[in-house]
Amino acid sequence: MCGIVGIADAEGVSFPLYYALFALQHRGQESAGISTFDAGKLHNHKAQGLIAEVFNRDILSRLTGSVGIGHVRYPTTGENRPENNQPLNFSFKGHIFSIVHNGNLVNSTRLSSEYEDEGHIFATTTDTEVIAAIIARELTRSESMEEAINLCMQKLKGSYSVIAMLDGTIYAFRDPLGIKPLCIGKTENGYMVASESVAMDALGAQFLRDMKPGELIRIDSEGISCRQITRSNHTGLCIFEYVYFARSDSVIDGVLVYDVRKKIGEMLHQEAPVQAEIISPVPDSGTAFATGYSEASGIPFKEGLIKNRYIGRTFIMPTQKLRENAVRMKLNPVRGHIAGKSVVLVDDSIVRGTTSRRIIDLVREFGAREVHFRVGSPPIIAPCYLGVDLPTRKELIAHNRPPEQVCSRIAADSLHHISLEALIRATGHAPEDLCCGCLTGCYPLEIEGERSNCRSIDFVDGTYQMKLEI
Amino acid sequence: MCGIVGIADAEGVSFPLYYALFALQHRGQESAGISTFDAGKLHNHKAQGLIAEVFNRDILSRLTGSVGIGHVRYPTTGENRPENNQPLNFSFKGHIFSIVHNGNLVNSTRLSSEYEDEGHIFATTTDTEVIAAIIARELTRSESMEEAINLCMQKLKGSYSVIAMLDGTIYAFRDPLGIKPLCIGKTENGYMVASESVAMDALGAQFLRDMKPGELIRIDSEGISCRQITRSNHTGLCIFEYVYFARSDSVIDGVLVYDVRKKIGEMLHQEAPVQAEIISPVPDSGTAFATGYSEASGIPFKEGLIKNRYIGRTFIMPTQKLRENAVRMKLNPVRGHIAGKSVVLVDDSIVRGTTSRRIIDLVREFGAREVHFRVGSPPIIAPCYLGVDLPTRKELIAHNRPPEQVCSRIAADSLHHISLEALIRATGHAPEDLCCGCLTGCYPLEIEGERSNCRSIDFVDGTYQMKLEI
Amino acid sequence: MCGIVGIADAEGVSFPLYYALFALQHRGQESAGISTFDAGKLHNHKAQGLIAEVFNRDILSRLTGSVGIGHVRYPTTGENRPENNQPLNFSFKGHIFSIVHNGNLVNSTRLSSEYEDEGHIFATTTDTEVIAAIIARELTRSESMEEAINLCMQKLKGSYSVIAMLDGTIYAFRDPLGIKPLCIGKTENGYMVASESVAMDALGAQFLRDMKPGELIRIDSEGISCRQITRSNHTGLCIFEYVYFARSDSVIDGVLVYDVRKKIGEMLHQEAPVQAEIISPVPDSGTAFATGYSEASGIPFKEGLIKNRYIGRTFIMPTQKLRENAVRMKLNPVRGHIAGKSVVLVDDSIVRGTTSRRIIDLVREFGAREVHFRVGSPPIIAPCYLGVDLPTRKELIAHNRPPEQVCSRIAADSLHHISLEALIRATGHAPEDLCCGCLTGCYPLEIEGERSNCRSIDFVDGTYQMKLEI
Amino acid sequence: MCGIVGIADAEGVSFPLYYALFALQHRGQESAGISTFDAGKLHNHKAQGLIAEVFNRDILSRLTGSVGIGHVRYPTTGENRPENNQPLNFSFKGHIFSIVHNGNLVNSTRLSSEYEDEGHIFATTTDTEVIAAIIARELTRSESMEEAINLCMQKLKGSYSVIAMLDGTIYAFRDPLGIKPLCIGKTENGYMVASESVAMDALGAQFLRDMKPGELIRIDSEGISCRQITRSNHTGLCIFEYVYFARSDSVIDGVLVYDVRKKIGEMLHQEAPVQAEIISPVPDSGTAFATGYSEASGIPFKEGLIKNRYIGRTFIMPTQKLRENAVRMKLNPVRGHIAGKSVVLVDDSIVRGTTSRRIIDLVREFGAREVHFRVGSPPIIAPCYLGVDLPTRKELIAHNRPPEQVCSRIAADSLHHISLEALIRATGHAPEDLCCGCLTGCYPLEIEGERSNCRSIDFVDGTYQMKLEI
Repeated sequence: MCGIVGIADAEGVSFPLYYALFALQHRGQESAGISTFDAGKLHNHKAQGLIAEVFNRDILSRLTGSVGIGHVRYPTTGENRPENNQPLNFSFKGHIFSIVHNGNLVNSTRLSSEYEDEGHIFATTTDTEVIAAIIARELTRSESMEEAINLCMQKLKGSYSVIAMLDGTIYAFRDPLGIKPLCIGKTENGYMVASESVAMDALGAQFLRDMKPGELIRIDSEGISCRQITRSNHTGLCIFEYVYFARSDSVIDGVLVYDVRKKIGEMLHQEAPVQAEIISPVPDSGTAFATGYSEASGIPFKEGLIKNRYIGRTFIMPTQKLRENAVRMKLNPVRGHIAGKSVVLVDDSIVRGTTSRRIIDLVREFGAREVHFRVGSPPIIAPCYLGVDLPTRKELIAHNRPPEQVCSRIAADSLHHISLEALIRATGHAPEDLCCGCLTGCYPLEIEGERSNCRSIDFVDGTYQMKLEI
Repeated sequence: MCGIVGIADAEGVSFPLYYALFALQHRGQESAGISTFDAGKLHNHKAQGLIAEVFNRDILSRLTGSVGIGHVRYPTTGENRPENNQPLNFSFKGHIFSIVHNGNLVNSTRLSSEYEDEGHIFATTTDTEVIAAIIARELTRSESMEEAINLCMQKLKGSYSVIAMLDGTIYAFRDPLGIKPLCIGKTENGYMVASESVAMDALGAQFLRDMKPGELIRIDSEGISCRQITRSNHTGLCIFEYVYFARSDSVIDGVLVYDVRKKIGEMLHQEAPVQAEIISPVPDSGTAFATGYSEASGIPFKEGLIKNRYIGRTFIMPTQKLRENAVRMKLNPVRGHIAGKSVVLVDDSIVRGTTSRRIIDLVREFGAREVHFRVGSPPIIAPCYLGVDLPTRKELIAHNRPPEQVCSRIAADSLHHISLEALIRATGHAPEDLCCGCLTGCYPLEIEGERSNCRSIDFVDGTYQMKLEI
Repeated sequence: MCGIVGIADAEGVSFPLYYALFALQHRGQESAGISTFDAGKLHNHKAQGLIAEVFNRDILSRLTGSVGIGHVRYPTTGENRPENNQPLNFSFKGHIFSIVHNGNLVNSTRLSSEYEDEGHIFATTTDTEVIAAIIARELTRSESMEEAINLCMQKLKGSYSVIAMLDGTIYAFRDPLGIKPLCIGKTENGYMVASESVAMDALGAQFLRDMKPGELIRIDSEGISCRQITRSNHTGLCIFEYVYFARSDSVIDGVLVYDVRKKIGEMLHQEAPVQAEIISPVPDSGTAFATGYSEASGIPFKEGLIKNRYIGRTFIMPTQKLRENAVRMKLNPVRGHIAGKSVVLVDDSIVRGTTSRRIIDLVREFGAREVHFRVGSPPIIAPCYLGVDLPTRKELIAHNRPPEQVCSRIAADSLHHISLEALIRATGHAPEDLCCGCLTGCYPLEIEGERSNCRSIDFVDGTYQMKLEI
Repeated sequence: MCGIVGIADAEGVSFPLYYALFALQHRGQESAGISTFDAGKLHNHKAQGLIAEVFNRDILSRLTGSVGIGHVRYPTTGENRPENNQPLNFSFKGHIFSIVHNGNLVNSTRLSSEYEDEGHIFATTTDTEVIAAIIARELTRSESMEEAINLCMQKLKGSYSVIAMLDGTIYAFRDPLGIKPLCIGKTENGYMVASESVAMDALGAQFLRDMKPGELIRIDSEGISCRQITRSNHTGLCIFEYVYFARSDSVIDGVLVYDVRKKIGEMLHQEAPVQAEIISPVPDSGTAFATGYSEASGIPFKEGLIKNRYIGRTFIMPTQKLRENAVRMKLNPVRGHIAGKSVVLVDDSIVRGTTSRRIIDLVREFGAREVHFRVGSPPIIAPCYLGVDLPTRKELIAHNRPPEQVCSRIAADSLHHISLEALIRATGHAPEDLCCGCLTGCYPLEIEGERSNCRSIDFVDGTYQMKLEI
């Protein structure tokens, strides 16, 4: 997962890009970068680290120009090579080309090997360079950048929200299933595209609309123009954007994320009510869920765990004996709220289960009588091939393990995951318009060795399946 | 305001001190330091910056020893001199002496000039060095450190929670009014003292009790011993620890801070109910207040403002036109929650009023129909001489300005501050046991040019007065 | 100008590469990088800055493997893009490919545009990527890497000392004219190639020999093998390596650099003797020249200027009035040596003349009676297209300006440049085996708009010409 | 050893202090600091590190004022505490007082304990704070600062060159023996004092004269005034300033350091001639000696060892096998100059002998036929109590070990130290005016357990003794 942004504004873009990336920092904390275009020259800065570490006033002042793109990258398990930091910048035939990408191609190996057969070499290990290579080649044969992107999109399979800058013009496009978000805004003297609407809010820009799946947008000093490149019967919006990735104050494809999470909280109560004296989120991501659960159940919302805001990447992890207590540095139970109480904890998801176990143990240590765990997503049982860095099936606690066993592993008094039906209902989208691959093992496009486009949702042999009515 | 900690534990103290300071980081982000004592030698490291910036694994490994003290400092308006970073370390007559201090003396100028008359010079501009100088001098005339501290405490006027380390023994003492907090805990192989109980929680140590006002504690490898140095008829606990300074998960003088804030929220509703569709905190400090207000009023608690967690000290403030939008980088209104709605915003306090005004303007810009501001403290009308860095009377928006005028200045539809009576009731302490100086202009000890020990609470000529029934 | 190194040694290479780069740091202070290959994976680190700033023990420990290459880059006037930092790393068809390059191609624009016509895009603005692209493409058609490099070398025009690493095997090759240096050494458990022999000295490795112009070397865990790819009638060794670039303790193409400089000093005396009381180098580069001049003339060698060793890249340049004194921070005249004396100053070269002027003024200010300037190279009158970052013709003080005018501009009492004939004789190489392009305007290979392969050396119309007897 | 500077100049002093400290950086690389005084306020910055690391333009711009003092500190074996960084700053009785010190007191323990008996405590472990405490106390009893310093100097025993700043007036004083250097200069709009004359050169200021031993100088906006506080029959100038500490371009007490070193080189040849083909310095400090030896002997001066300029404090020392080769990273033998040759190496001194041994081994490894070691100082046989951080007697290779044994230990073909008589003659000072304690074990003032004021120079029982004719 990454955050991307592109701005064309006559007043200069480096500072607005910097502020927009701050609003998107939750989508990636590993590296950050900005490329701007000014009078035929590219200006670029990117490095490992948080935005606040990568940029300073001097650097931003050097990044002149009225057009630019930016990127924040999530740490992934792949090779950590400085070359992979985005924006990627290329030159060919007098063109200056920069590109940022959020998503993951499922056919990048096949595509890159086609090019390598003709002698092409790749400077990075990113899908992004594959997309750039295709666009560049098609551009030599096409009459326009729009046509080149069209031809490129025919070849790509997977998730891709892309912002490219060719000689000072911005081109943004979103894959036909719209798996990853991308939206359009109006700045005071221009236009912008960004992963989430909060980037517009941060700039005081006006959110216009989400980009449509399969749509191509062109922004330059003249203004903005749109073109629908491909159309699909259904979309494949990533359901985890609503559950976890996006900021709760973002509106993704017409739906306020916070409200989805609150509704999930309400439905969690309806699906699995519990007699308890306090409902507490696991901070920060559990808050919206917990307010919904509290309202629906009447159980008072109280913070039972307080997060230490100062623990970041440079925190020195304790060694030996202290290590098991690491989670207590980050989350401090409020004894007065939980001692002797039956507590409902709400979290967004369970991946490996180790952190959940530690939190529950800690809450008990501070005197909770009962700990009931409620989870804002169904069990994660399958990998994601479309942009999320999930562990392999084996490491997922819910893989081939029914909820009762998971409950016992994390040592909760009760455990309930929201049902897939309820989750989908909470998003307001039709089931066939969402990608729930990691929850069902069934994906909205063909992936080798996996099932796709299933027609119903069932829990069979420890696996959810989505049955789509197509 | 500062955070202090002292630990004696056979297993080594530098890493525990580091973790304890992380739990106290909210009490001071300007500088951090640790001194340890090992086999007759002092080890010390301190510098400007957050704990995460000041310390690394190498430095902590150098700080050997089973006894040590630590400090985090709040930015104050005084001279910013590196010498002022604490712990302060001294040597005299073969002794090695380190000291940390939270609080503010009101007679430090007089005390220091007494010493200067005898030729003493001061290396820092801190009260802490004055305390150290007195202890050192008394020690030359006394038979014990306990006696020297006793004599020292007779001279000091003001607030002082102090942890000192003399040749590897820890001495902690709290002023007779107990203005600033200090508490005792049991580590696995020793004991600790710290500003707040969350430091114990972070280490998995056991919170034992608050130190009593006027009490002296001695900790060494043998164990812990206590001695009541002075007794007062009443105490003067800082009421703003409950309102704002302390972490909500701390227990201060027997009272869980979170619960005080929640109760204030409930009483705010009772004192000033409002017809509204959403009650939202100003994050982060308003949350506990808002849950109380929501529960008492039945108005749904929803986050109407989302805080950007990544904006810290290195954030580059926008220039010119963008500057007025700085607050929007930190706090993003959730349009879906507030557009067309009547919104109650709850904040802990109003100081100058400028930030409140910007927040209210921003919430209106995102469509709020009405904005009702509720504040968890009475108007701040007077300076603090006892450890809090408040602006001068002139800069305080509530100084000589009745609430209606403040309401109009911050452009709220309605404004209500909690009443002083309700606030005191929420803390569970007797009025005569609290310092409410900044709210009343009347202080629990004599301060030149100010009133002290008043007997009732009244709003007279734009000023609150507390009338104590002693 | 850059410094490059490649090592294959069973004992691990990251620390040896680091030490070798330290020995080559004088060839480039702008950026540094190392790539290693271990068990099918590439490890890479590179960044702006000196080696000491770019690497630390942790980073070097991560760069595992028994094969690796490294690079230090000189600041050039081109775009300063982080992508340009070397080694460049590429992947194609399962291969992992890294490359470093010292030199400059004169046909890179034509070569890159050929590739761009076929849709290739370039991620950097370096010649190095062009070389990589050609090798990769040829490799898809060739039976071996040796053959691919052979085909590549047919296409390249210019100077190129290259070290490439393909899947853990090192390939080093030097252009047919051998313009930039490259030499081979034997480490304890393997082999190495590097720009200069001092890299071998630093590691305690054995210097074996210079690589021949047009030669290709292959190093892997099996050992080393050589192949002569192309042969030329004459070579084009860069004469400025002897005058300025190389460390004086390096042996370049069989000749100790220090001795060349000392001989130049002797000949400077023969060509332009002067009555003087002291001969002093302009430190550091003038020392060897000055010892030669002193020995030949009998005038005592004394340091008349002492260099401040601590002034580096982060030195804050004085503003306004102090600026003209900046040179005095770096070079301090020894009043006792020069006051009232006739002083001979020896420097390696004059480029724009501004620094020379300031030094001479400073020496006079400290009391020198006369200042005679002697220069270890003939006037620089033309640009370098082959790897040296010289200013344009217009900025060169000697362009279209006879020595007498230069003498007056720099305010010396007398000025003498070594003659080209003497300089060439000092190197021990035949005139037709040296590139003296910047001194003659005549280059050893065809460059558009410039003369090449001239047959004599003459000063005609303010321009030196070399007349080669071919 | 440390470097100190004070400037009063109407045009502002922070940048001039910064440049002056750069010129004195060789006197201390561990920490640096500047204090300035402006309109009643002290501005101060100091930290561990080189000047270039400690200061930047922002910091210097904050240090406003037309009076200031600065310090660079040498690493010593004592406790490395940040409090010890100078200038030390104090406040007392409305005064603002800063102080820097180069030297070492021999009675500081007794002095500090006197103060501690009266209850005084010390914030640092430096002699400097003791001096400050005495001045402050005397000032309360005296009518003037001059008188207070006078009284203070009566109490101090040892070496002390001090610059103090009281409320914007600079006071500089030098101990009665003048052990450490201190000199006066004229800036464009004011005056300055500094450890060495090179600080004046760097600023383009005019060197006026050395301060006299026992002299006190006062500088303020009005100008400069002098007063002779004490007079001695003889002085005790540190002979190692001439041999090693001072920059060779400094004039110390009327003598150009470079010339002393050159004369020593000449006398080394007279005392111990050798048949050799090359004379080379051990860089950097051996150069002046070597030029003298070369001139006197006719053996050509050639650099046989080239120093790598880039190896600084952050250089990562090799581990294990490579460690013995560490010296070869710093000093690279020039094979062409030494292979098969008889080489004379000249160094300033031998302390433990380990580095000398490694250098000689290295030179042999590069083919030297014979290595003759010549040393610019007599054997160091005793500790320094007056400001130089020498190892204990036991660690000194020359302690109780005659030169023949040292020669064999360092594996030289011959070894000669300059005789003490010749060394003294080279300085031009009378024997009774120099401190040669580390060379004779006899000191110019009384030190407990050591001899003082001896009357002749003799080598008796492995120890030099100086016999003074007083």
